[in-house]
Amino acid sequence: MKHNNSIVNDVDKYISGHALDIIREFSGFLSIPNHASSTEDIKRNAVFIKEMFETRGVEIEISELPAAAPFIYGEYKVPDAKRTIFLYAHYDGQPANPSQWNSDPWKPVIRTNTIENGGEVRSLPERGEDIDPDWRIYARSASDDKAPFTAITAALDFIHENNLPITSNLKFIFEGEEEIGSPHLSEYLRLHKDKLQADMLAICDGPVHQSGQPQLYFGARGYAGLDITVYGPNRHLHSGHYGNWAPNPSLLLIHLLASMKDPGGNITIEGFHDEINPLNEEELKIIEQYPDTSDILKKEFGIAQPEGDQNLVERLLLPSCNIRGFNGGAVGKHVQNIIPSSATASIDIRLVKKMDPSRTLDRVEEHIRGQGFHIVREDPDTETRRHHSRIAKIVRHEGYPAVRTKMDSPEAMFIIRAAEQAAGETVALLPTMGASLPLYQFDEVLNVPIVGLPIANYDNNQHGPDENIRIGNLWYGVKLFTALFIGK
Amino acid sequence: MKHNNSIVNDVDKYISGHALDIIREFSGFLSIPNHASSTEDIKRNAVFIKEMFETRGVEIEISELPAAAPFIYGEYKVPDAKRTIFLYAHYDGQPANPSQWNSDPWKPVIRTNTIENGGEVRSLPERGEDIDPDWRIYARSASDDKAPFTAITAALDFIHENNLPITSNLKFIFEGEEEIGSPHLSEYLRLHKDKLQADMLAICDGPVHQSGQPQLYFGARGYAGLDITVYGPNRHLHSGHYGNWAPNPSLLLIHLLASMKDPGGNITIEGFHDEINPLNEEELKIIEQYPDTSDILKKEFGIAQPEGDQNLVERLLLPSCNIRGFNGGAVGKHVQNIIPSSATASIDIRLVKKMDPSRTLDRVEEHIRGQGFHIVREDPDTETRRHHSRIAKIVRHEGYPAVRTKMDSPEAMFIIRAAEQAAGETVALLPTMGASLPLYQFDEVLNVPIVGLPIANYDNNQHGPDENIRIGNLWYGVKLFTALFIGK
Repeated sequence: MKHNNSIVNDVDKYISGHALDIIREFSGFLSIPNHASSTEDIKRNAVFIKEMFETRGVEIEISELPAAAPFIYGEYKVPDAKRTIFLYAHYDGQPANPSQWNSDPWKPVIRTNTIENGGEVRSLPERGEDIDPDWRIYARSASDDKAPFTAITAALDFIHENNLPITSNLKFIFEGEEEIGSPHLSEYLRLHKDKLQADMLAICDGPVHQSGQPQLYFGARGYAGLDITVYGPNRHLHSGHYGNWAPNPSLLLIHLLASMKDPGGNITIEGFHDEINPLNEEELKIIEQYPDTSDILKKEFGIAQPEGDQNLVERLLLPSCNIRGFNGGAVGKHVQNIIPSSATASIDIRLVKKMDPSRTLDRVEEHIRGQGFHIVREDPDTETRRHHSRIAKIVRHEGYPAVRTKMDSPEAMFIIRAAEQAAGETVALLPTMGASLPLYQFDEVLNVPIVGLPIANYDNNQHGPDENIRIGNLWYGVKLFTALFIGK
Repeated sequence: MKHNNSIVNDVDKYISGHALDIIREFSGFLSIPNHASSTEDIKRNAVFIKEMFETRGVEIEISELPAAAPFIYGEYKVPDAKRTIFLYAHYDGQPANPSQWNSDPWKPVIRTNTIENGGEVRSLPERGEDIDPDWRIYARSASDDKAPFTAITAALDFIHENNLPITSNLKFIFEGEEEIGSPHLSEYLRLHKDKLQADMLAICDGPVHQSGQPQLYFGARGYAGLDITVYGPNRHLHSGHYGNWAPNPSLLLIHLLASMKDPGGNITIEGFHDEINPLNEEELKIIEQYPDTSDILKKEFGIAQPEGDQNLVERLLLPSCNIRGFNGGAVGKHVQNIIPSSATASIDIRLVKKMDPSRTLDRVEEHIRGQGFHIVREDPDTETRRHHSRIAKIVRHEGYPAVRTKMDSPEAMFIIRAAEQAAGETVALLPTMGASLPLYQFDEVLNVPIVGLPIANYDNNQHGPDENIRIGNLWYGVKLFTALFIGK
């Protein structure tokens, strides 16, 4: 279904005339490193955002909780508001290792396409020159999650320039430590509960559908994690002198991990799936309508055989248990002929609705204990090592539960209409994102419908090297927020 | 059995008077970085060694093969020589990552004991002050393998100062790329075969017995290795958006490795042990006499349960298959919520006599193929990934076979006598070292008895961080080479 909409055409025209300015401001924003561990960098981002929004008439208030990245609260009040929309985005990013990137993560570059498709770095176009929507901007957080900031401010510029009426009160909350697990969000929301009240919460984060079709999501998987360190000799030993006698911790760890998940990707930890309800009829219907792109993605990512027998959207309604990192002695240039002293695996678990993070971690620990491991919380001393042939240090990342919101409330329907208007077509409705977002913290305090409004292309290399955004997706964001802010 | 020997007492006295000079020269030598990948560093070592030996009357000839580290040949001819002894040592070292060391690997420091035993850094003693033989010198290659250079030159100084007669012609070969697998040693030996002829070869490398008792060894395990890289999606994927659907290469790799060796350390690759002969009666007798320190080592290294049911020396007469490195996504500070694009394990295999390196690697490959993996030699393109759910890139390190020499030849007996004289007690006789040395290259060209004369303490952290030598072991080396050079 194609929508015809003059406002969207007007936004397109506006973008044509102002693309260079939008991209320049966005590049300036992307040039500020934003890993939550660097307080100084984070503060520079906050100052930039404050200026960016105040220029557009949004009142900004920066809250500094002890040891937390600044929370940036914004408010834009209008007379006779029909409702209050609360928008969330985060300005911090994942760490970036420049040696793995094709260009500096903190020096945004335009490429004429993805690197995989031979896209080449090019200069900013001349004013008036056409900008191909398939061009990309490469930089850390280009998609996750700085793009919505620029889409929102460009939407406000368009609305102001055309003297259009904003129909809802707008509230914004910008977080600076989402990528490290939002350790202070709950506290902030509780402290400011009264002023944060709204009719709905729009989460501005995540990618659109893999086909490029715009989408909305109505939930996100929860998160839990653990680091498992297994021990060998109390120092690295020469693998010649002691190989075949001194136990190798990587060998013990791979057998432990192999016992947790079979090669086909089925999690074999007892009780892991106990709380998961089977999908209800409505969910099954939504999944049926949802465009399945498993085959396209397999081709795109070079995957011959995904885990499990279901398609992607079905798999995301189930929990995952992923070895995100494994390190036991070096490979490549730094390889050494040693039996390493320890080996560590880092596991991230994605939870679905009803699973309790803490109980899930307990079950994983129980499994590890069942494999004969003595569980410790600190590195064991030599005496402890002498007495236990299998020791696992477990560091728990307690995480948070999944959230899923109803898809047929008036608030949800209002957002769906705005997205369809901006997209000019039907949007895909995803019952839950695969990724984890701290929605539960909002859910606990605000208790309103929560809908995700992603704008980033799915192939944005989020969290990895060479993160990017497709410029056409940034433009979709401008239209989306315009439609939302002036929607009846 | 304690030997009484006035020469050894004289050497002790000599060391008392000259310890400072010996340690100072040694420290200068240790201050020169020596990883074979740095041509410039390696050349600086060669210049230092040339000077060091020419000062003692050894004629030095440096051979530069194309792209090889310099081979340093030394000759010390005497009238009426009873025999010719050929001595080998290497001057290159393993890579060292300073961030893992307690002191700079290239700035030698004296400690009053091992770091584990609370040894503290101290300054050089005043002249005349006693030097505790339990003090350590910490630096890369302090044991492996720069110690013999200093022990030999100090022995020559003692002999010269006392006008003692050297009874054998001495030939030396010093190699600068042992730690990277001696890629040019065979070529050098073949080219210079005629001038290298000798009655026996003394390999000056490796550690003494774990009890501290001096030992000789009569062979070394061979070596082969392989790097296995297993593939997931063609780029890192976000573990939330794709976790539970995109296959994780670490998961595939751990299952593959788990199929190669059980948690108890038993290698389960078909045919791996096919060429190994059972031990003969003589070997069994030697093993029985050999001091078993498995219990001491278990205590020392904090090991509750070694691999296999036998003691260490028995285990070294069997091949090993060790996961020396495993890397699949980062852990710790650099952890990312991704499904990595690939995971790599580096395996080193220690071979025993009769095992062919290449055939052994073939068997490992056959096993990997049997686990359903499509084997490639280069990183696969997306098209290849689309067609094979399990792909393993295998990089073979062909290595070399094991060597073992007879322990009752006159040449072997001559060396045993010299070692007993230096030690003042019975020395332990080890049929084979666990570690690999390029003895086969000598064996092929020279065909003479090969005996290993180690001087380093066993807890020298060879190849790892905080490598060190116990000063008393350096003094044993001086006595050993003195006894060898003036032995009847």
